[in-house]
Amino acid sequence: MNPLSMETCVRLDKKTTALTPPEIQNLLGQVLGWQLIDRDGTLIITKPFKFQNFNSALSFTNHVGQQAEDQDHHPAILTEWGQVTVTWWTHSVKGLHRNDFIMAARTDAVYESYFRA
Amino acid sequence: MNPLSMETCVRLDKKTTALTPPEIQNLLGQVLGWQLIDRDGTLIITKPFKFQNFNSALSFTNHVGQQAEDQDHHPAILTEWGQVTVTWWTHSVKGLHRNDFIMAARTDAVYESYFRA
Repeated sequence: MNPLSMETCVRLDKKTTALTPPEIQNLLGQVLGWQLIDRDGTLIITKPFKFQNFNSALSFTNHVGQQAEDQDHHPAILTEWGQVTVTWWTHSVKGLHRNDFIMAARTDAVYESYFRA
Repeated sequence: MNPLSMETCVRLDKKTTALTPPEIQNLLGQVLGWQLIDRDGTLIITKPFKFQNFNSALSFTNHVGQQAEDQDHHPAILTEWGQVTVTWWTHSVKGLHRNDFIMAARTDAVYESYFRA
């Protein structure tokens, strides 16, 4: 179990800033398969997860959504037949926060627990 | 209620071809707010739906997913805080089929029934 997945998201205030590139690289090394992308100037992390059918994909989407509600930090989740792509970033800092890597690790944990038998 | 939403998807075989541009324009005129997009050479239709929060968005995603399972025709559903973007196309014809417009109308019907009080 990734220790990051045991952490809980912190509440952000107006002074919270985005992670620096070295901080991002450090955290990126602690989660597997997450791709760092610059989307119109905002850094995001994204990862595709594979499933046997649509229903399993949708079930995973719901599990990730439940984590998002629990932690009050919400991703973009693209649900398709056999695949779910989860994307994390922090709107208020216009980039990445440690919260995003915590959620990435929690997303992986959900997949490991329920969908990779 | 859009009459298209009362239709059921037909099963496709290898001979089924994509709709022609005039057929697409005709059907596009029968659904409201769906945008026709050429995505890497494949025509798709897509529409964003607004919600008050993440949970309502996720609930809508599940309703649309249930319709997809019922009709055995599956979309791409992007779930975010306050918004769900649904995209329909038919993989086997590398474009659009009447089934996609039936599902677009069914998607609208779900939104009207459950989420627009």
